[in-house]
Amino acid sequence: MNDLSKLSTLTRSLLRGVGQVMFQDSAWTGLLILAGIFWGSFAGGTPQVAWGALVGLIASTLSGMLMGIDSEDGQNGLWGFNGILVGCAFPTFFDDTWLMWVALIICAMTTTWVRKGFNNVMAPWKVNSLTFPFVFMTWLFLLCAKTLHGLPEYGLSVPTLESSFSDAVATPDFQDIIEYWLKGVSQVFLVNSWVTGLLFLIGLALCSRWAALWAGIGSAIALALAFLFGADSTSISAGLYGFSPVLTGIALGMTFYKPNWKSALWALAGIIVTFFIQAGMNSLMEPFGIPTLTGPFCITTWLFLLPLYKMDVEEKPDHSSWSKK
Amino acid sequence: MNDLSKLSTLTRSLLRGVGQVMFQDSAWTGLLILAGIFWGSFAGGTPQVAWGALVGLIASTLSGMLMGIDSEDGQNGLWGFNGILVGCAFPTFFDDTWLMWVALIICAMTTTWVRKGFNNVMAPWKVNSLTFPFVFMTWLFLLCAKTLHGLPEYGLSVPTLESSFSDAVATPDFQDIIEYWLKGVSQVFLVNSWVTGLLFLIGLALCSRWAALWAGIGSAIALALAFLFGADSTSISAGLYGFSPVLTGIALGMTFYKPNWKSALWALAGIIVTFFIQAGMNSLMEPFGIPTLTGPFCITTWLFLLPLYKMDVEEKPDHSSWSKK
Amino acid sequence: MNDLSKLSTLTRSLLRGVGQVMFQDSAWTGLLILAGIFWGSFAGGTPQVAWGALVGLIASTLSGMLMGIDSEDGQNGLWGFNGILVGCAFPTFFDDTWLMWVALIICAMTTTWVRKGFNNVMAPWKVNSLTFPFVFMTWLFLLCAKTLHGLPEYGLSVPTLESSFSDAVATPDFQDIIEYWLKGVSQVFLVNSWVTGLLFLIGLALCSRWAALWAGIGSAIALALAFLFGADSTSISAGLYGFSPVLTGIALGMTFYKPNWKSALWALAGIIVTFFIQAGMNSLMEPFGIPTLTGPFCITTWLFLLPLYKMDVEEKPDHSSWSKK
Repeated sequence: MNDLSKLSTLTRSLLRGVGQVMFQDSAWTGLLILAGIFWGSFAGGTPQVAWGALVGLIASTLSGMLMGIDSEDGQNGLWGFNGILVGCAFPTFFDDTWLMWVALIICAMTTTWVRKGFNNVMAPWKVNSLTFPFVFMTWLFLLCAKTLHGLPEYGLSVPTLESSFSDAVATPDFQDIIEYWLKGVSQVFLVNSWVTGLLFLIGLALCSRWAALWAGIGSAIALALAFLFGADSTSISAGLYGFSPVLTGIALGMTFYKPNWKSALWALAGIIVTFFIQAGMNSLMEPFGIPTLTGPFCITTWLFLLPLYKMDVEEKPDHSSWSKK
Repeated sequence: MNDLSKLSTLTRSLLRGVGQVMFQDSAWTGLLILAGIFWGSFAGGTPQVAWGALVGLIASTLSGMLMGIDSEDGQNGLWGFNGILVGCAFPTFFDDTWLMWVALIICAMTTTWVRKGFNNVMAPWKVNSLTFPFVFMTWLFLLCAKTLHGLPEYGLSVPTLESSFSDAVATPDFQDIIEYWLKGVSQVFLVNSWVTGLLFLIGLALCSRWAALWAGIGSAIALALAFLFGADSTSISAGLYGFSPVLTGIALGMTFYKPNWKSALWALAGIIVTFFIQAGMNSLMEPFGIPTLTGPFCITTWLFLLPLYKMDVEEKPDHSSWSKK
Repeated sequence: MNDLSKLSTLTRSLLRGVGQVMFQDSAWTGLLILAGIFWGSFAGGTPQVAWGALVGLIASTLSGMLMGIDSEDGQNGLWGFNGILVGCAFPTFFDDTWLMWVALIICAMTTTWVRKGFNNVMAPWKVNSLTFPFVFMTWLFLLCAKTLHGLPEYGLSVPTLESSFSDAVATPDFQDIIEYWLKGVSQVFLVNSWVTGLLFLIGLALCSRWAALWAGIGSAIALALAFLFGADSTSISAGLYGFSPVLTGIALGMTFYKPNWKSALWALAGIIVTFFIQAGMNSLMEPFGIPTLTGPFCITTWLFLLPLYKMDVEEKPDHSSWSKK
């Protein structure tokens, strides 16, 4: 390959890495998602989040290249999707110092081989590690904000014992609800912006209407449950109950099962369970002062994939890059 | 089958589900245990616990029927035993609202396929998930009591940092000790009543004297250790150190190993270790304000089964429904 | 065998058990390490730690003999290395009562079959449980210090919510730094003494210069990172950031990979990641008031072994006792 074609291959791998966070092996979807991240972080006055996303994406992809593991994974963007999430999380929760960037690059690079290791562990049960390499490594690094002066926190909550509710349930109007619903989608990349959520949905629809549909359903059902069960209004209005169910919806509704009425029921059940696991894990993380990240999505999706439930309908054939070990 | 015989099959499956919490594949044992639960919860002024037990049992059994997984498991009551425990736990720790009943049914139904998934994971090492599907899902839902207004807590402790002992060691007389010992058995189903404990022991003896014997030994040794090592008197008098060792005793003493002097020593060691793991986990759960449930039993039993220790005596032949994957 | 030769075999097994904590299958290394433990604990005014080490070592080795599992493991010292660590930890963190010694013996004996069980679980991925049987069981027992009057704590920290830094970053001179660096090695056995650290390094060099080198590098890099990222000076000066990276260095640099430039880079990456996981876990354990023990080493080493990364250079041939399941 000449240099130009190499660069084009690399660019496509990187953009696919963005799309793979939402299970879409498509550079165009990745491009629109990236646009959404840039829009949301610049509009929100935290441009370092967008740059962090890029740095994390590149670092974790380079890590895969240097190690030379599973280059097919690399082409499909499976090296980059954990790294971009690390890159979104670090500038969101840490102060913008040079040591933070060092830590971000170390953590993002690590996710590439941690993913390989976790996937090796899970292979016998035909599940994979999803975004858990990002979740696991970022949890451990975020905890350092409490013990290392060099990594001061920026947006982390204060560790508390959860014993009383901080605020009342909100009474939003219709426009608010649409906004919260779209923010539920944008928070997949830790962005708090309804415009970004809209760009994400458009990006998904470019690659698969089913993906866009299940993302929308996931955020909508979680929002309804959050109102019904009286979740705190700060979390609701920031879309923090939506992002994990969005991913569960895409995972169960169209990625790991072929779309049909049985898998639709299964995905709906998954979305409902994700909501409760999200609420429970919010409480679990309180004494540590760190967020759940996409942990609730990972746990729920595993709980729904591990039974190896067959549904009488044959499973989706094995051509998605996600079915590979 | 005609309707009457179907109903009779279903009833037997449900009652066996009650018995299977204590590893007994017997409808009669189940019936006596159920009687014990009703007695204990009505006598304690919390009849909702008994109704919850029934609802959870039915919901998780229905879940297995709807999904059509492993119908042999269903006939042996292995769909229902996690569900009945969910049904005992929710009205014990949550306030009695209609949303609690919705959450109870969701959680109980979930345990059926979570059990299947966990069992798939553990199959290569010839262990199964025991009551952990109940423990895991109930932990996550109980944590929601701190974050969802719609699921207010009722009997949960306030999250605290464990740093000093709340009360002195008690000096009970002989009658008290018998009572605590029987409550250690009744707490397997979260019931605080010595009459219930007695009914459970009788129910066990109906199916297997070994099971009743090991249940009694488990509770007795744990009680002795709790006094010797100075556990807090509130927990001792409510039988809260007894229920996990009771289950470990039955599991190691007669379920997964044939009763003989070597397995007896092994079961005794298991009961002792369960006591310490119970005390340790009590401390671990303090900052979250949720109970250990039967987690200490699950962890200890796995620690004693995973070595695949053979004992020179051949293992119990494979005809128990618990040996099946 | 006559009695004398039996005794000599037993002694060699015990001493190898000491050496195996640092992956060295050598009685001489074990002897020097034991000397270091005795020196450090007597000099520090806590002789019970040295006696605890001996008792734990003997108890866990006896446990393996009684059960008759894997006698080759026993000869190689793989029964004893978790037990000696339990024996160092209990008198360090618990008050010196007779019940503490009972608990120490129970816990140390347990580690032998827990190790067997954990190794069974991990065998399919060609990793083993390292010192995790010690870590896991000791965590659970240490937690009991908060719930059992009979096991009062001695050197445990008070459970807190980590929200502010307790002290400033130190400005040590060169002699201090050498001391902290050697304490990083001695803390592998929970001993806070630079002389002990020196004895450990000499003991390692007796068996393998690579092992001594990587132990030194591990402690040095962790120390540098602790200063760079501003860890608290109390932990730095006690060597508490060093002991896990020391073990990761030996594990990745010369035990599980043949020493070459690629595995050297891999081990360096492992040491760096161990530092962050140590800092993160320090924060994670705060609400429970228990130490991380060698947990960060275990987790990092698994993260670096599970990818089964091959390095183009063939892996070390299978003659180390650590490669055996």
